[in-house]
Amino acid sequence: MANTNRQLILHSRPKGLIAPSDLQLAEASTPALADGQALARVKYISIDPTMRIWMAADSYLPAVAIGEVMRAFGFAEVVESRHKDFKKGDKVVGLTGLQDYTLIDVADKRGSFQKVPPVPFISDTAFLGVLGINGLTAYFGMMEIAKPQKGETLVVSAAAGATGSIAGQIGKIHGCRVVGIAGGPEKCRWLLDDLGFDAAIDYKQPDWKDKFAAATPKGVDIDFENVGGEIMHSVLDRMNLHGRVVLCGLISGYTKEDPGLASFVMVLVKRLRVQGFIILDYTHRYMEAATQLGKWKMFGKLKDRETIVEGLEKAPEAINMLFTGANIGKLLVKV
Amino acid sequence: MANTNRQLILHSRPKGLIAPSDLQLAEASTPALADGQALARVKYISIDPTMRIWMAADSYLPAVAIGEVMRAFGFAEVVESRHKDFKKGDKVVGLTGLQDYTLIDVADKRGSFQKVPPVPFISDTAFLGVLGINGLTAYFGMMEIAKPQKGETLVVSAAAGATGSIAGQIGKIHGCRVVGIAGGPEKCRWLLDDLGFDAAIDYKQPDWKDKFAAATPKGVDIDFENVGGEIMHSVLDRMNLHGRVVLCGLISGYTKEDPGLASFVMVLVKRLRVQGFIILDYTHRYMEAATQLGKWKMFGKLKDRETIVEGLEKAPEAINMLFTGANIGKLLVKV
Repeated sequence: MANTNRQLILHSRPKGLIAPSDLQLAEASTPALADGQALARVKYISIDPTMRIWMAADSYLPAVAIGEVMRAFGFAEVVESRHKDFKKGDKVVGLTGLQDYTLIDVADKRGSFQKVPPVPFISDTAFLGVLGINGLTAYFGMMEIAKPQKGETLVVSAAAGATGSIAGQIGKIHGCRVVGIAGGPEKCRWLLDDLGFDAAIDYKQPDWKDKFAAATPKGVDIDFENVGGEIMHSVLDRMNLHGRVVLCGLISGYTKEDPGLASFVMVLVKRLRVQGFIILDYTHRYMEAATQLGKWKMFGKLKDRETIVEGLEKAPEAINMLFTGANIGKLLVKV
Repeated sequence: MANTNRQLILHSRPKGLIAPSDLQLAEASTPALADGQALARVKYISIDPTMRIWMAADSYLPAVAIGEVMRAFGFAEVVESRHKDFKKGDKVVGLTGLQDYTLIDVADKRGSFQKVPPVPFISDTAFLGVLGINGLTAYFGMMEIAKPQKGETLVVSAAAGATGSIAGQIGKIHGCRVVGIAGGPEKCRWLLDDLGFDAAIDYKQPDWKDKFAAATPKGVDIDFENVGGEIMHSVLDRMNLHGRVVLCGLISGYTKEDPGLASFVMVLVKRLRVQGFIILDYTHRYMEAATQLGKWKMFGKLKDRETIVEGLEKAPEAINMLFTGANIGKLLVKV
């Protein structure tokens, strides 16, 4: 018994915001089920910033192909089944796509559909948000990467978003001072009055950076970053030495070409760890290192080369040589 | 017995490369020594990219003040002493400054001068390079942050520089495939023939990115980053999932205003750890997280809010709402 299945098809890759022509509605029929398949009616679709990434180019997942149904997480209810693990009436979450009906297939090796148990006091939609992708993202970002300590200052950007609002609350649960950055008075009110954030900064106010500085008197230990660009830069500017940046999203960069963000986008999608360091932090261990380096050097495993410039008065030119690439190996001035 | 002491004084903060007027030569007399002081003749001065940072603005150290002797590491020999720890003839390394004579003062709490022991086969200048700041920087960057594993691919930018050349060799010692990026054929020859790098890429060649891709057939696991900008971007583009970036320097950004590098400069000088992550890496632990989130939610420690858009056909507009900031909390489409 075929039903009409409306589908949003990726027709072109968006430039900037999504244009109506980029995603076009089409109608198909639901397929006749083979053994090992089930059909589910999509009830709710989760709208996530990462969808814009999927539309644009290959990243941590292949881009959605032109002509394909747009990829999306959703909540669905099984209406017909020839699949041993799912029966009619089962509630599931998974990659439903932007369509009325989704096919669940035992051959799908990603096993992208999970059954949702009935839990008292928990709504169906919670499995797409606080108990779904957003809650899980906030949880692992905070618990595995930020590792919040009592008394630390946590800043969350896009703090009134689905992930940011949970990340901030997890910070409160762990005794952090939590400062949210969000756009507009209603979002800030929600963060302060309902979620218990210690401060909420409206970045649409012209003096927001001053207010942000006042709200972080001890600097910032953890940045749960969802936005990137100028907001991230302002947070980094307030960070304490050896702080942690949980790079969860860079939403300010997804809809425009931003070369300043391009490298950070790679850090995000490739899940890289970038660690800045300055040798001054290791002074107490110089002897250990020098001993090892000296051994390697004596055994011929380390070679060095010097470029020596004669005369103290040549030191300014010598510094410039570093930036024009004129030296090989160690550059020294002989006084 | 006063001697003439030539000093290079910071006269103005450089724009771009250092202009002759930025650092000006002046003459002073060496001071008469008080108890607890020693005078040392500067023999060699280490020329390091970070000097350009010290000239420009406060960073991990305060900027050199206008009118002060320019800060620099150097190698010096004690010529006169009323300091209990140093005697005439002692060799020292420390922050000598750009001058002929440097004062060693017991009251200097940073204890910035260290005596250099006589070591067979090790030249004086090695204590400014392979056994000094550069060797130590390469050592801790590689051993504490990169943690190189046998068979991994390490890329070093500014590979023929004082730090990069040692970082690459430490990679070889640990069994890595080591690819250096440097400017010009002689630097590349040195890396290949003398230091044993597996590949050396001359970024001044127009096809260097193709050669770099060919030299990293298994991608890149560790980036020992000294340069930033386009070179860093090209390395990040070849990195494997969960790779490590040892952010040691960003020399391409020190002499120009580069907003794309500005945030990375903060990661460097504040020694931040930036960790990109995607929730897909944690699929095997979803149940643990969902259980904890569910508990927090039931006990009222986690609150959520939803913005629900009705109708599948509204999904494209809904995605755009994320980028215009129109939603509060979780954004859903009800199908």
